Amino acid sequence: MNRKMVLNIIGKIVLTEAVLMLLPLITAVIYVETTAMYSFLITIAIAVAVGGSFMAVSRTKDTAIYAGEGFVIVGLAWIILSLIGCLPFVISGDIPNFFDAFFETVSGFTTTGASILRDIEALSKSMLFWRSFTHWVGGMGVLVFVMAIIPSTKGSMNIMRAEMPGPVIGKLVPRLRDTAKLLYIIYMVLTLAEVILLCFGGMPLFESLVHSFGTAGTGGFGVKGDSIAGYSPYIQWVIAIFMLVFGINFNIYYLILFRRARQVLKSTELWVYLSIVTVSVTAIAINTSHIYNNLSDTLRNSAFQVSSIISTTGYSTADFDAWPGLSKAVLLLLMVIGACAGSTAGGLKVSRVVLIFKNIGREVKQMLHPRSVNKVRFEGKTAEENTVRSVATYFGLYVVCIVVVFLLISFETFSVGSNFETNFSAAISCFNNIGPGFGAVGPMLNYADYSSFSKVVLSVAMLLGRLEIFPLIIAFSPSTWMRKYR
Amino acid sequence: MNRKMVLNIIGKIVLTEAVLMLLPLITAVIYVETTAMYSFLITIAIAVAVGGSFMAVSRTKDTAIYAGEGFVIVGLAWIILSLIGCLPFVISGDIPNFFDAFFETVSGFTTTGASILRDIEALSKSMLFWRSFTHWVGGMGVLVFVMAIIPSTKGSMNIMRAEMPGPVIGKLVPRLRDTAKLLYIIYMVLTLAEVILLCFGGMPLFESLVHSFGTAGTGGFGVKGDSIAGYSPYIQWVIAIFMLVFGINFNIYYLILFRRARQVLKSTELWVYLSIVTVSVTAIAINTSHIYNNLSDTLRNSAFQVSSIISTTGYSTADFDAWPGLSKAVLLLLMVIGACAGSTAGGLKVSRVVLIFKNIGREVKQMLHPRSVNKVRFEGKTAEENTVRSVATYFGLYVVCIVVVFLLISFETFSVGSNFETNFSAAISCFNNIGPGFGAVGPMLNYADYSSFSKVVLSVAMLLGRLEIFPLIIAFSPSTWMRKYR
Repeated sequence: MNRKMVLNIIGKIVLTEAVLMLLPLITAVIYVETTAMYSFLITIAIAVAVGGSFMAVSRTKDTAIYAGEGFVIVGLAWIILSLIGCLPFVISGDIPNFFDAFFETVSGFTTTGASILRDIEALSKSMLFWRSFTHWVGGMGVLVFVMAIIPSTKGSMNIMRAEMPGPVIGKLVPRLRDTAKLLYIIYMVLTLAEVILLCFGGMPLFESLVHSFGTAGTGGFGVKGDSIAGYSPYIQWVIAIFMLVFGINFNIYYLILFRRARQVLKSTELWVYLSIVTVSVTAIAINTSHIYNNLSDTLRNSAFQVSSIISTTGYSTADFDAWPGLSKAVLLLLMVIGACAGSTAGGLKVSRVVLIFKNIGREVKQMLHPRSVNKVRFEGKTAEENTVRSVATYFGLYVVCIVVVFLLISFETFSVGSNFETNFSAAISCFNNIGPGFGAVGPMLNYADYSSFSKVVLSVAMLLGRLEIFPLIIAFSPSTWMRKYR
Repeated sequence: MNRKMVLNIIGKIVLTEAVLMLLPLITAVIYVETTAMYSFLITIAIAVAVGGSFMAVSRTKDTAIYAGEGFVIVGLAWIILSLIGCLPFVISGDIPNFFDAFFETVSGFTTTGASILRDIEALSKSMLFWRSFTHWVGGMGVLVFVMAIIPSTKGSMNIMRAEMPGPVIGKLVPRLRDTAKLLYIIYMVLTLAEVILLCFGGMPLFESLVHSFGTAGTGGFGVKGDSIAGYSPYIQWVIAIFMLVFGINFNIYYLILFRRARQVLKSTELWVYLSIVTVSVTAIAINTSHIYNNLSDTLRNSAFQVSSIISTTGYSTADFDAWPGLSKAVLLLLMVIGACAGSTAGGLKVSRVVLIFKNIGREVKQMLHPRSVNKVRFEGKTAEENTVRSVATYFGLYVVCIVVVFLLISFETFSVGSNFETNFSAAISCFNNIGPGFGAVGPMLNYADYSSFSKVVLSVAMLLGRLEIFPLIIAFSPSTWMRKYR
């Protein structure tokens, strides 16, 4: 383990966080929120001190980073980012309890959007801004951002691979730094497009920014207690469509913008994603048609909730916890599937689901012809055996993690809904970075009633889900720190 | 596809069912139950006619059976067995609705033990006997029984492999027919031991037989509405221990009886199984200690329910649906894990769970050292890559099947408990061949309120779970019937 390089890069990340915090600081200045202003200033000072001292003690000539270092950096960086990121909430007294503030910040960076705030509308503007901005930063990945601005060192790819979700990470262009830059440019352009379209629909600029950050990162933090329900149908449709858009692999946008757009039509993952959305919207619209007045309301509510859940955003325009069982079951399934790899969304990812099904098909063939050799084909080429195996293994680990989280919080009891349903959906929802679940954590309620212990467990679940488990396992296994990885 | 051989062996199985039905017929004669007597006689006549005509039209010189034929025979045989096996219930009017009778019979053969009977105690003795006897036959496998009595043909192993649960099927002795015989001898001896111990505790012979069949097959059908709750602590302990015993790989008993008993101590699966049981009993005892009067009651109830659920039997001495959330979560986890491979129990099987965990450990190593070669070791030797891959793939398919079953029944609503909890636990419970779930299908309630559609779905779930999915998929895919498997 190249400990100095680990410390060095984490130092850079903490300094980056200090820089990013200038934006909410400016917001605090604009809206003359004195307490918030001092809270951000104090936090920035702490971040500079911590980041600076990390960098000072870690000067080294050996700048090489291997797979092990990549995972450790990502695992530790996300925890430290959340620890520092929650300070403004604690210092300002907006969220006085540390565990609550930590939960809220982890929920922000991991783009979960699960909240412990009983009254969101009481928060100051700059805190609301910071809360949503963490979604935007966490969505594409803070290390990807750092990679885009600092010169690459040997093995930077190992960091990017550890932070980016999905079964395979492809570079868009040969140079890693350019790939990171390209991703962030596409990300910014799409976010800006949403801000403009929302302002066009009469939403104030501040709210447009907050909701665009929440949509872009597929997070789900907003400014209202009833999420998006109070906005106009136009705004609801804009957000519904952008949630879907941010759930698509960013490679697709790169291909459309810079390469052959026709290649996009051949993407299996994209087609499967859009098909799942279409089938789910139709099924839920039929199942909920008796609840709404007309076809337009039914379709909008169905489409918004499907788009929000499959993209793991978590905004809502309807109390889907009160929907019929079949609709809730479809939503639960979408929570698990998630959106495309290489997007800002969580969940298993559509490409993994497709590979799992293809692998099952191969297994049937293999059982019938034990001596034949069958390969799994995906996206027009033969999938590597290692990838297929990793996906199957990841799925096992994924289920194990969700079961353990559910077990750890299953002692919790609530006055609303079934405890089983609440705790089970909370585990699924936090791990897949969605936000709302069913029962006492339904879209119109939140996580405020959980104990501090469960809040920590669910925070860990969110981190595990966002980083796809391995970085945290590796960062916290003693053997990682004992051995040299070359 | 060697269609004639498929028909031929299914014919033999149907004739075997006719012979097995002589036992409930004798019971009907002893207890002078005239209606039941005629119902069994008519069914036996039908079975002889069907089986006989299958054999008559399928004379062939080509007796070879390949993997494809093995799966098809097993898949179809279990459906036909259930269709004929439910006739006595329908003809006698004990269960007048065909779908109900089919559900009850599938539940019997698959050793699930889920019932649609609102008043079990109203059933005639011979019907109660037949109901539990299907557990005994289905537990070890009806095709294994047929293999034990008819001369082996080329490829009989393919039938046994398709019917027996678990990731790897080992022959105890070189000759397949001897293996099948040995398995049934051990099975009979253990069943007899339980009958004697139950009679010794004051249970009438008839009830001892019924409960021993239910325990041996890890099924769960009994004779009382409150399952085992009304019996003495001695009887409850005997059944608790035998449920555990029938959840152990039968290879272990073979080793103890005929080979080196010391080798048994090296079995990873056995140790993990016993450890899971110990930890679960302790956790639930602590979690439920406030419910019961004393340590002895607490321990007995905890041990009984754990033993019943992990062995996928489904007997109960307590209404575990009313237990605290943590205990219910542990039971749900045990439902999924199940007992050992090569036993009569359902679920994923402990050996699969161990292999899934070992494969995850290997994946972590592989991620840290991308160029290293890591093998999975199990039961003291290197596991074959194909086995590890099959286990990971099976787990994916297992989850997919449970999700689909849950989706299909999720429109059902109940007056008791949460619909989500009821339907979700019903899908898990039926697929893993346990019986009771939570909510409206809790241990003190049953499946009577489900619609006929859902009863068919859950019947298919029970068959899929018992046969471990593949035989039914293969039997019903058109491509199986079109191609020649050589």
